[in-house]
Amino acid sequence: MIGGGQGSFIGGVHRMAAALDGQIELVCGAFSSNPAKSKASGKDLFLPEHRVYASFEEMILEEKKLPEEERMDFVAIVTPNHMHYAPAKMALENGFHVVCDKPISFTLEEAYSLKSIVEETGLVFALTHNYTAHPMVKQAREIIASNKIGKVRKVVVEYLQGWLSTKLEDTEQKQASWRVDPSKSGIAGAIGDIGTHAANLAEYITNLQIKEVCADLSIFVEGRRLDDDANVLLRFDNGAKGILNVSQICAGEENNLTIRVYGEKGGIIWQQQEPNTLEVKHLDQPTQLLRTASVGIGQAATAVTRIPAGHPEGYLEAFATIYNKFAHVLQDIKAGNEPKAEDLDFPSVDEGIKGMLFINKVVASSEANQRWEALSTEEELVAYS
Amino acid sequence: MIGGGQGSFIGGVHRMAAALDGQIELVCGAFSSNPAKSKASGKDLFLPEHRVYASFEEMILEEKKLPEEERMDFVAIVTPNHMHYAPAKMALENGFHVVCDKPISFTLEEAYSLKSIVEETGLVFALTHNYTAHPMVKQAREIIASNKIGKVRKVVVEYLQGWLSTKLEDTEQKQASWRVDPSKSGIAGAIGDIGTHAANLAEYITNLQIKEVCADLSIFVEGRRLDDDANVLLRFDNGAKGILNVSQICAGEENNLTIRVYGEKGGIIWQQQEPNTLEVKHLDQPTQLLRTASVGIGQAATAVTRIPAGHPEGYLEAFATIYNKFAHVLQDIKAGNEPKAEDLDFPSVDEGIKGMLFINKVVASSEANQRWEALSTEEELVAYS
Amino acid sequence: MIGGGQGSFIGGVHRMAAALDGQIELVCGAFSSNPAKSKASGKDLFLPEHRVYASFEEMILEEKKLPEEERMDFVAIVTPNHMHYAPAKMALENGFHVVCDKPISFTLEEAYSLKSIVEETGLVFALTHNYTAHPMVKQAREIIASNKIGKVRKVVVEYLQGWLSTKLEDTEQKQASWRVDPSKSGIAGAIGDIGTHAANLAEYITNLQIKEVCADLSIFVEGRRLDDDANVLLRFDNGAKGILNVSQICAGEENNLTIRVYGEKGGIIWQQQEPNTLEVKHLDQPTQLLRTASVGIGQAATAVTRIPAGHPEGYLEAFATIYNKFAHVLQDIKAGNEPKAEDLDFPSVDEGIKGMLFINKVVASSEANQRWEALSTEEELVAYS
Amino acid sequence: MIGGGQGSFIGGVHRMAAALDGQIELVCGAFSSNPAKSKASGKDLFLPEHRVYASFEEMILEEKKLPEEERMDFVAIVTPNHMHYAPAKMALENGFHVVCDKPISFTLEEAYSLKSIVEETGLVFALTHNYTAHPMVKQAREIIASNKIGKVRKVVVEYLQGWLSTKLEDTEQKQASWRVDPSKSGIAGAIGDIGTHAANLAEYITNLQIKEVCADLSIFVEGRRLDDDANVLLRFDNGAKGILNVSQICAGEENNLTIRVYGEKGGIIWQQQEPNTLEVKHLDQPTQLLRTASVGIGQAATAVTRIPAGHPEGYLEAFATIYNKFAHVLQDIKAGNEPKAEDLDFPSVDEGIKGMLFINKVVASSEANQRWEALSTEEELVAYS
Repeated sequence: MIGGGQGSFIGGVHRMAAALDGQIELVCGAFSSNPAKSKASGKDLFLPEHRVYASFEEMILEEKKLPEEERMDFVAIVTPNHMHYAPAKMALENGFHVVCDKPISFTLEEAYSLKSIVEETGLVFALTHNYTAHPMVKQAREIIASNKIGKVRKVVVEYLQGWLSTKLEDTEQKQASWRVDPSKSGIAGAIGDIGTHAANLAEYITNLQIKEVCADLSIFVEGRRLDDDANVLLRFDNGAKGILNVSQICAGEENNLTIRVYGEKGGIIWQQQEPNTLEVKHLDQPTQLLRTASVGIGQAATAVTRIPAGHPEGYLEAFATIYNKFAHVLQDIKAGNEPKAEDLDFPSVDEGIKGMLFINKVVASSEANQRWEALSTEEELVAYS
Repeated sequence: MIGGGQGSFIGGVHRMAAALDGQIELVCGAFSSNPAKSKASGKDLFLPEHRVYASFEEMILEEKKLPEEERMDFVAIVTPNHMHYAPAKMALENGFHVVCDKPISFTLEEAYSLKSIVEETGLVFALTHNYTAHPMVKQAREIIASNKIGKVRKVVVEYLQGWLSTKLEDTEQKQASWRVDPSKSGIAGAIGDIGTHAANLAEYITNLQIKEVCADLSIFVEGRRLDDDANVLLRFDNGAKGILNVSQICAGEENNLTIRVYGEKGGIIWQQQEPNTLEVKHLDQPTQLLRTASVGIGQAATAVTRIPAGHPEGYLEAFATIYNKFAHVLQDIKAGNEPKAEDLDFPSVDEGIKGMLFINKVVASSEANQRWEALSTEEELVAYS
Repeated sequence: MIGGGQGSFIGGVHRMAAALDGQIELVCGAFSSNPAKSKASGKDLFLPEHRVYASFEEMILEEKKLPEEERMDFVAIVTPNHMHYAPAKMALENGFHVVCDKPISFTLEEAYSLKSIVEETGLVFALTHNYTAHPMVKQAREIIASNKIGKVRKVVVEYLQGWLSTKLEDTEQKQASWRVDPSKSGIAGAIGDIGTHAANLAEYITNLQIKEVCADLSIFVEGRRLDDDANVLLRFDNGAKGILNVSQICAGEENNLTIRVYGEKGGIIWQQQEPNTLEVKHLDQPTQLLRTASVGIGQAATAVTRIPAGHPEGYLEAFATIYNKFAHVLQDIKAGNEPKAEDLDFPSVDEGIKGMLFINKVVASSEANQRWEALSTEEELVAYS
Repeated sequence: MIGGGQGSFIGGVHRMAAALDGQIELVCGAFSSNPAKSKASGKDLFLPEHRVYASFEEMILEEKKLPEEERMDFVAIVTPNHMHYAPAKMALENGFHVVCDKPISFTLEEAYSLKSIVEETGLVFALTHNYTAHPMVKQAREIIASNKIGKVRKVVVEYLQGWLSTKLEDTEQKQASWRVDPSKSGIAGAIGDIGTHAANLAEYITNLQIKEVCADLSIFVEGRRLDDDANVLLRFDNGAKGILNVSQICAGEENNLTIRVYGEKGGIIWQQQEPNTLEVKHLDQPTQLLRTASVGIGQAATAVTRIPAGHPEGYLEAFATIYNKFAHVLQDIKAGNEPKAEDLDFPSVDEGIKGMLFINKVVASSEANQRWEALSTEEELVAYS
């Protein structure tokens, strides 16, 4: 693991997700750019001292020297955005598969570069857009693919948080500080941090591509340097229209990621905060509530479900599913087998590039700021008065 | 009553709403442009034959001849949009107060004209944007006015229906046929029919004005002539941003009018389909569920509540509240008193003009279709491949 | 109308319910046992002075003298329980139909007596168990009758309020004071006031009869004289089992009347506070949400629905449905026609008797207090320690 | 691990729960009474062959021979009820701590015996009543303990499943077959399998003891030998009353475990299927929705929360919390420290005994079948007709 030392949020998430299904064992780490902190973090995790490294470079080089059956199989990169590319590149170039947190990189160019390296090395790269791994997301995708709601016409995806409603970055809060810092986060704030999740979810569920965006980004908290709110109109490649509504200043919201897709014959609604229910609407019959592990659920969802209906699986379980599929792919490769298609159902470099394109175009559209209609012109105001 | 004959939906709504509180009695009507149908409708309603008229012109002239204590006090106009202006104008000019369904008129010019006439005659004009009459809408307005959620930053208002997912206008369905006919409905379809409700609700609850719109209107059902879907970005006069999401092709949706407003310190969520609950979010305390007639409810909401908490009031009750307030204003005027401010809390010609401006500008912005960013340019696609 | 003067809750409810559908007009009243208060109440309601009476006896006798086309058609009795029997009896014996609030009477004997009088006079008697008039209750009854959920096995009905959590009767609160007074309410408190609604709803929806009860009544508020909480086990005539859970001390609850019925193949859930949704569960398909006026709704529910799907109808609308059906029955009788079966679908004296039997038996079972098992006997406690 | 071989449900749950927090490693197992199946199961779990045993007796004896730092620290017993006592007893007597699935044993006597052995050996025993480990359950307990809802008056606890609506035990379904077999499950079916969870949850949240029960157990599926439905009236040691509603024949229900507690000043509602929300009702302020990891949450809940608000934790996370606390207790014991009080917050032998007492008394009360009141006696029927 690279990053994820004491005080990290996402590092612990990756570790729990990797451990859950008993397929992956944490064997080494460079948990911080601060060597002492890396050591301390490794100790907390019961790692032997010699496999806790002072830097990711050291880890990659030293692990490479170990016998194959002993050395790490892959690296998990859980650092802030600006520190994704270098370790991912070096790991791949030294023969290690990679799991990387999103967005894939700091710039679009880095994303293109990683794609090349992945293609050259033939190694496996997983990008943790974890929300697409929920059983009911896979069920929604299957329903839409099977044309049960007809051709898709409208997609409304929202990811609303409220935790940056105040200037949290001025406190010691580690999560906030790097996310609103352009030198670490990139050109976008909310749109990069959670907007990419929302866009990825919309494309995954519908199997459509976002073709055009028209965006209005805002910074509501004074002195902040990156967007904390985004209202975006979407157009999809099949003619569908949509809305992407992303915010980190919706006071009182937690992680309200919700997607609604309407087709010619029906619609689906899925909400991350209650992920085990999928509402399916129909023109010709009453709304149905599909539930994880319950009646009427297809193969893709069932394959990623662990426990019986009514026993909720949550965020960590979906995250673990990405690791679990990734592990099965690696096991097949090790065994000389072709990885199974269903195991390859996790985001990779292509989704990473799409995410970076999305960020760039949303920012460009917002900066252009054209073709807004004022509600009343001066003449109209005269007429009105 | 003008319009609302057999087969009408909104005519019955107005009649039930007017009757509920025992303040208003139906005394006459011109229920249809077809005299025979008008007569038959009047008979169903237990009206004496001589007060069921063949046309609105006849009704206004004949009623005017009756002794004051006997003749109608006001007219209720429940015809399609293109038939609002003429009867409203004639009624006002002959001394009758007016209740009119929304949108106020067929064109913006008619709306301006009605405003002039209302001002000249000094008569009372009510526009039935009924949703603003729900107790919990008034409560939301009071919460925002009292700064409990802080300065408003974001407004998301949606009105989603699915009943026009197919080409219903090709059947005999009376409601559908005029609504999608530009000669009866005006330049807009969904955005005029329900978008104006949504915009009105957003402005009423926040006490802000929509300043700019950026819109993407669509016609999804082949052969239809007016928009059946609208995605609109909003900017408000205080700097708040917003989204207006309106559709009549969201298959499976009924009348899903929902508004969410987020301020610096909290937010509110109200849903028309479950109108007696108001969710109030806070940065510094748990989310609260305010309920009609229950603890913590202010004066404005209490004044429009009829029954104890937990006994749901619905659409008709809110509609009735507009009639009830209108009746109290008329009673005060008759008695020579100044109408009470709280009784004047119903939409009138100004809201009518705003609605027509909103329609015009949304249509203009959508037609302009500028400043969309394609997600990948050709060069980018080359780089990508 | 008898009762329902200024300060009354249920009087206003009956008036709004009667007015809503334009079939019934309030023509006279004896609104209070206090003649001055009766007069004042009548004036508020725009009644001519000579038809506001000082007592129900006066009203019945005077109205009887009026020409038939002028006099009242029926009386609505909205007094406290101990004042149901006398006016109902006198009205019937003088040729007036009766609408009466529930429970039907003060004692079981009175209920039997009313049944005799109704049978002798052939007049129409409606008991306002209003909850059974909701569209989705009728839909639930139809679903169960059509065997869609199979033979009923379990019924859980709850009516939870919290308004009597404190000793409200010691304040001026008019609703509270008579309800907890054995001389006005009868032998039961909560079980009579709302338990009879719950029992009636359970029998109506399932078309089963409660055969046995095993009850534990409590008085939680010190000094109160009638039960404010009831836990009751039920057995039905088809072998189904059930629970009736009624309380007026569930702090924070409003009017949480909820019924769940489970059969061999599925189940239904209906909640009064959100009455337009009916949840239908199935063994072999996902849960469905049936909605008032929407797809998949049968004839009985459709017939009592006024407005399109997604525009909520509530408590008053259901109440109005009883009056509307009652009015149609009276119109048919006047016209010399046989009343329609669907119009006769409202509770009457038989339901009144059942309600009184239910009250009596629940009280008896609770007083008997037998066959409870202590969780540990003394010997067991010894073994345990 | 003892039990939990291929095809087991609860074995996998225990393994995932134990792995999640990185504190526990599976080192050996006797996964089945069938040695070949035990071996195969161990291989699936990446265990070395020599630590997969043919029987629990073999495992306990062989592991005891290993050096202390190598041998297992504790055993997890995940077998059917009749196979809890023997391995638990042997493990304890050979110096191993125990985690045991619920109910603790086959008979009450076994439960008393285990308590003695635990007390004699001083070893740690955890009983996996997992539902009490949810953050919002701990929050509810804290709220009640702090008197925020006042003295508890009423407790309604329900655990409704539908999976045994048909005679599933006649199929190959492994979970069903032993649960309805008196030789494996004991004297109770649903009341033992899930009723004990419900009773335990009620006592944990309220910190009250159930003092008396009055029960009506049923077998609805023909030919079944143990109860599949239970309606039980409860009385608590502080005078509170309650209802326990348990079923495995509520067709369409999954694992609907819900508890509602009402006190003098408010109430709480918690539902296992959406475990991250706790509804708190008040007499004097609006209902609040408390959410895992969000504002207003106390120490006990926070300590068992892993991820930020709005990222749902579920069944496995709560289960893991029992293992995590158990692991911390063992670590403290190993280090020679006194275990922390907060780590000892998991069910143990006392809760096991209470569960067995509860089962015995409910069965006894139901068999006694006294003091039911028939709704109408013969005389009453005569009077009625």
